[in-house]
Amino acid sequence: MTRNRQWVLASRPAGRADASNFKLIDAAVPAVQDGQALIKVHYLSLDPYMRGRMDDVKSYAAPQTLDEVMVGGTVGEVVESKTDTLRRGDMVVGMGGWQQYYVTTAAGVRVIDTHSIPESAYLGVMGMPGVTAWYGLLRIGRPKVGETVVVSAASGAVGSVVGQLARIHGCRAVGFAGGPAKCAYVVDELGFDACIDYKSDGARAAFAAATPNGVDVDFENVGGAVFDMTLARMNVSGRVALCGLIAGYNGQDIAPRNVRSILVNRLTVTGFIVTDHLDLWPQALQELGRHVASGALKYRESIATGIENAPAAFIGLLNGENFGKQLVKL
Amino acid sequence: MTRNRQWVLASRPAGRADASNFKLIDAAVPAVQDGQALIKVHYLSLDPYMRGRMDDVKSYAAPQTLDEVMVGGTVGEVVESKTDTLRRGDMVVGMGGWQQYYVTTAAGVRVIDTHSIPESAYLGVMGMPGVTAWYGLLRIGRPKVGETVVVSAASGAVGSVVGQLARIHGCRAVGFAGGPAKCAYVVDELGFDACIDYKSDGARAAFAAATPNGVDVDFENVGGAVFDMTLARMNVSGRVALCGLIAGYNGQDIAPRNVRSILVNRLTVTGFIVTDHLDLWPQALQELGRHVASGALKYRESIATGIENAPAAFIGLLNGENFGKQLVKL
Repeated sequence: MTRNRQWVLASRPAGRADASNFKLIDAAVPAVQDGQALIKVHYLSLDPYMRGRMDDVKSYAAPQTLDEVMVGGTVGEVVESKTDTLRRGDMVVGMGGWQQYYVTTAAGVRVIDTHSIPESAYLGVMGMPGVTAWYGLLRIGRPKVGETVVVSAASGAVGSVVGQLARIHGCRAVGFAGGPAKCAYVVDELGFDACIDYKSDGARAAFAAATPNGVDVDFENVGGAVFDMTLARMNVSGRVALCGLIAGYNGQDIAPRNVRSILVNRLTVTGFIVTDHLDLWPQALQELGRHVASGALKYRESIATGIENAPAAFIGLLNGENFGKQLVKL
Repeated sequence: MTRNRQWVLASRPAGRADASNFKLIDAAVPAVQDGQALIKVHYLSLDPYMRGRMDDVKSYAAPQTLDEVMVGGTVGEVVESKTDTLRRGDMVVGMGGWQQYYVTTAAGVRVIDTHSIPESAYLGVMGMPGVTAWYGLLRIGRPKVGETVVVSAASGAVGSVVGQLARIHGCRAVGFAGGPAKCAYVVDELGFDACIDYKSDGARAAFAAATPNGVDVDFENVGGAVFDMTLARMNVSGRVALCGLIAGYNGQDIAPRNVRSILVNRLTVTGFIVTDHLDLWPQALQELGRHVASGALKYRESIATGIENAPAAFIGLLNGENFGKQLVKL
């Protein structure tokens, strides 16, 4: 009988998440009931929001339950179906979690076309991260032609799309990323106007030089010192789309020292989560798909191999060791 | 010859503002040119924004220039006029500054009707503080009937109007104020549903008890620990009208520790200054005037007497020693 290896949450982190917070267990592959299908997972998505779910505090959703399979987006293949709509061999995206197999109803997954777009892209640019970038930039940031857009974690799954979309919409795109390799990628391959290595000594001066007309839109993924640098450069009536605070996911102090900029510059800071706006996903995915197909929207993936490596890859993601969208190939 | 006593900014504060930052000088009453009028100031308004102007940093406006008369709103009487529209005896509001006399063009002042409304009210509920409350609450906060509105500095010129307007619009109004006397006034005289003494030990628990359904709108005047208490109680899709950060005017740390609430609860935080919205002042003043005339909108004033006492009254305002709108009667 085939095994179903699963990562469950073994304990909640005290500060920094580490491998001991996860436990790999063997389960039976679940039996398929009428109205269900069995999905074999090909790719597991790793995303910063998962860190928030590991804590026992109020967040978007209920915390991850202890001893249950870690939540997560997946792309997989229908290997058995007792539904009217899913066929064996269909490729689907769903919330399969950190495991090799899961059962679902047809309503729990979305069938995808993997002929023109690689299946893994549905966890990145053509999935939740891409729609997050689209919504936050265009619906909250509302950039006008010629304005300056800043995005932190610029080489990541969300940030890379934000900057490229900003360029497509006629804006100056400036990123923050960690280290010269990521910054070179952001400028040379993704086409941002500039990218600041936030770990470098001259970051503040380099950022000022890269934003000669100030900043009109900030797409904030990081928080902390990076957010403060951006707040100090915001123009009057600027918009901040607050998407993530990854600098604080392990309990670090990320209180913005430059909060006065919100007042003095009459900024609007809007927190959001893309799953509040499911009605806009079709429009977003249509636009993103067009740009991916034309080659205007590029992306990169960091792929760990084997479900046993999911926790290490996830901890690496929280430490910024990934380069582009972090996936696990099962 | 009549003297014109003036307070000028003698030095910029290093942290806390004190009396040594101001210098009282004697000047001649200015001569009136064609197209000008001479105004004798009756009341000088003292407002927290003046503290920001004392620093040499980018703010709404250019910093107050050293050795020039401190900026400030005034109500006064036309004592001489070489204009077509202003007549001797007219009462006007304007930005006369911390001095006994000033000259102005007709465009620099607004003639007020002091028959039905006392002249000093045009510096408070019927002036900039009142319109600030109206705009921030109704245009940024957009409270719905039955929602909970929180306002810090609730007994002050702005906060007192915010809570009363919230009640008029069918909301639960909860204030923060400093000390039991101010809290009693806010509840017993202004009609707020509750008021929390932020200086008291049990403030956090009392605030939670006073906001059983969470907080939908925060009108923030203070920042720091008070803002953090409110952020911790915000409901999903809540709105924060960021009007002031008086807790930080002397350089204190006011970085919001609960910044994560903006993200998790998908809040919108909007900084504003009411002078960006001069087009709405007539509508706001009409509504405010109706409520003042009907007795639905009450206000209190702290009046210092004599221009020589302006700095002490201003420093008291920054320390929360005022009770209602702080004025100086000349």
